[in-house]
Amino acid sequence: MRNVLIIGAGRSATSLIRYLLDKSDAEELFITIGDLSITNAQKFTDGHPNGRGILLDVFNEPQRRDAIKNSDLVISMLPARFHLEVAKDCIEFGIHMVTASYVSDQMQLLDVKAKSKGLVFMNEIGLDPGIDHMSAMQVIDRIRAKGGKMLLFESFTGGLIAPESDDNLWHYKFTWNPRNVVTAGQGGAAEFIQEGTYKYIPYHRLFRRTEFLDVEGHGQFEAYANRNSLKYRSIYGLKDILTLYRGTIRRVGFSKAWNMFVQLGMTDDGYTIPNSENLSYRDFVNLFLPYSPTDSVELKLRHSLKIDQDDLMWGKLVELDIFNSEKKLGIKDATPAKALQKILEDKWTLAPHDKDMIVMYHKFGYEIDGKKYQIDSNMVIKGDDQTHTAMAKTVGIPVAIAAIKILNEEITTPGVQIPIKKEVYEPILKELEDYGIVFNENDVPYLGYNPNNVSG
Amino acid sequence: MRNVLIIGAGRSATSLIRYLLDKSDAEELFITIGDLSITNAQKFTDGHPNGRGILLDVFNEPQRRDAIKNSDLVISMLPARFHLEVAKDCIEFGIHMVTASYVSDQMQLLDVKAKSKGLVFMNEIGLDPGIDHMSAMQVIDRIRAKGGKMLLFESFTGGLIAPESDDNLWHYKFTWNPRNVVTAGQGGAAEFIQEGTYKYIPYHRLFRRTEFLDVEGHGQFEAYANRNSLKYRSIYGLKDILTLYRGTIRRVGFSKAWNMFVQLGMTDDGYTIPNSENLSYRDFVNLFLPYSPTDSVELKLRHSLKIDQDDLMWGKLVELDIFNSEKKLGIKDATPAKALQKILEDKWTLAPHDKDMIVMYHKFGYEIDGKKYQIDSNMVIKGDDQTHTAMAKTVGIPVAIAAIKILNEEITTPGVQIPIKKEVYEPILKELEDYGIVFNENDVPYLGYNPNNVSG
Repeated sequence: MRNVLIIGAGRSATSLIRYLLDKSDAEELFITIGDLSITNAQKFTDGHPNGRGILLDVFNEPQRRDAIKNSDLVISMLPARFHLEVAKDCIEFGIHMVTASYVSDQMQLLDVKAKSKGLVFMNEIGLDPGIDHMSAMQVIDRIRAKGGKMLLFESFTGGLIAPESDDNLWHYKFTWNPRNVVTAGQGGAAEFIQEGTYKYIPYHRLFRRTEFLDVEGHGQFEAYANRNSLKYRSIYGLKDILTLYRGTIRRVGFSKAWNMFVQLGMTDDGYTIPNSENLSYRDFVNLFLPYSPTDSVELKLRHSLKIDQDDLMWGKLVELDIFNSEKKLGIKDATPAKALQKILEDKWTLAPHDKDMIVMYHKFGYEIDGKKYQIDSNMVIKGDDQTHTAMAKTVGIPVAIAAIKILNEEITTPGVQIPIKKEVYEPILKELEDYGIVFNENDVPYLGYNPNNVSG
Repeated sequence: MRNVLIIGAGRSATSLIRYLLDKSDAEELFITIGDLSITNAQKFTDGHPNGRGILLDVFNEPQRRDAIKNSDLVISMLPARFHLEVAKDCIEFGIHMVTASYVSDQMQLLDVKAKSKGLVFMNEIGLDPGIDHMSAMQVIDRIRAKGGKMLLFESFTGGLIAPESDDNLWHYKFTWNPRNVVTAGQGGAAEFIQEGTYKYIPYHRLFRRTEFLDVEGHGQFEAYANRNSLKYRSIYGLKDILTLYRGTIRRVGFSKAWNMFVQLGMTDDGYTIPNSENLSYRDFVNLFLPYSPTDSVELKLRHSLKIDQDDLMWGKLVELDIFNSEKKLGIKDATPAKALQKILEDKWTLAPHDKDMIVMYHKFGYEIDGKKYQIDSNMVIKGDDQTHTAMAKTVGIPVAIAAIKILNEEITTPGVQIPIKKEVYEPILKELEDYGIVFNENDVPYLGYNPNNVSG
């Protein structure tokens, strides 16, 4: 038996663990799940003879090292900032490691040691980052193999609610970490390039400069720019590309409505509100509006955001019950972002039978012999239920496949890496198809942003 | 002779040095001016027999300690972050110290040592902070002495261009550090209280939530909120005050126009622009606008900011020549804020005969025996010329007066302090009157923000 240690039994680990337990006899695996809650860890094994749950606190050094040293491969599903101690132990004990997180600078520093010990440290192999890398590099490498020159790469991902479970005016529910949704886009301007020109969008304009996307059979979506598009030039080898843009997908109308919170200042996570626990939702809204002894919070908000009587945006606010003077925030020392999250969670939490949906969309523009082409590629995945969500499947299954391929020495190149090499992405994408994780590719006319090649 | 060391011979030191040299015979002072440029330091003494200029680099420890140890009092006119080493030497050698800067946490930590050595460390004794503290506390203490309870305190200051030198559509020129003007208001929401209710304004709304102020004989002004109003509750002992607001004064229309730069993202100081040195002003503007092969930067900007054909805002932009495709930024690794500063400096730099103007405005609302009253108090000071600007006078003269009063043991309470005690502000404000630095006080009807005492 090969011992696989999974650290962190969160919502994203369900499909990962099911995949590994399902293969455990055939692949001769024994799965240990370590979590801060042993009950939680044990629940995930569901009595499977090839699995067990253990208590594991990564900050308890003897406990952590003891769990790691008996493993053949460690999968860390913890938040990225907790990977480092695990990774150092893996180096020391000579154990492969897999994560779905972005490679941190400190993780990257372990590359030399991982290589010298022949260890595969595979990161960014979930959904985004993960499936985005693999599916993009597969098409980019194919274009290059044909002698094509990349002109444009745009890539969009969104974690959404499936249409059959969509029952609110925002067409959105929290299918993932709500905090990341509330603070999305903060920390600096979004940077990208269009037709060779750098473009910057400040946070307070981000949700008004959306693009639209049509996905056949699924309707129209919109996307706002991610902060970090430019780093993909070096990662994907797209140094001279004219257009490079990454974005987050939402249902049409979400971003413009979300912008109301941004404009009011309700997404700020930088200061705490005095006496926040006793403020009503209405009091909270009023913090961001001018004082008036007579005018209502409603009218002040309408005036402040210029919301007309017949504007659908108003209904979106009312639906969230943000003008309620009875409901209390109930959170001590809340930042505006935390208070807003609380209000949204009342309405946007998944109901027991709700299904989530992942949408990914790539555009590849390229040139061969002076002719321009474009491939659009999209993937739409729905969750089975609240346990095996689309998010859990698309994050967990690629992690699981990679883990087994590393154990089976099908993936062997050592070092700290992400799945952008053919030897890695090709077999994994192939196997993902068995789980319905498939991209639909279409040749479309190349337009770019300058179809008539005008200078301007 | 008593030796006074002035460190930093910048633009704000002119009136300070003239005051001290003028008094040097009567007060038996010898003034040493230490600066990174000895030519600069010597220029300031202007051959006066009681003054000399020396080379002084505060980071050159022997040089610094040598200059400080022979002094009876040290005035640091350096930026606040450079005071600490000077202050530590002053403690060691037993020397009084005066600065016009906010008390940093590290400076505050020296309080115990300063007290144990009987040293006066007077800070925040320029204009703002400085004259604002003294003039406000004088009125507040008077109201309290009458048995009044403070209900409202609002305080506004602005460094402006005098009307006779005002020749642009913005009614503004840089009379002080341009960088602070470009980045003003950044770093977090503005916080204040109105009628007992906390209010927050995010940066991207700050310049649209201005208040208007009328100053008799000087016309109308506007003010946007400062970030830090709430800290004045403890500083001025206004713990239960219902309304507390501090703001920055501009001529009417400035803030709404400035908001165009904020909205576009041009005031961001958090990232650098690739190839910035070779970008034209027009290229710079285009970074913040959507790509188009055909539409002009002008029309894209008009559309993006919804500027109508007949809107005066447009003229303000054109006046700055920001659409010029020939003028280059010429600054390597510029942030948007630095690039914008460059563009503005072309137009907003003081001409040789321009005069600046300082406006300060306080509102004090209070209650005695159930009746409500209000005092409005304002000060308007113009510069004599480009050397003795209103800014240099209002920053430098209070510093100089304080220095002499400390040497003459008229100000004796030791420790790290600011001028909010009667023994300090009373004689200094009295003497400032000789220099035309006078407040006009008016009793006005108390309105507050809730004149009819409605709940809402």
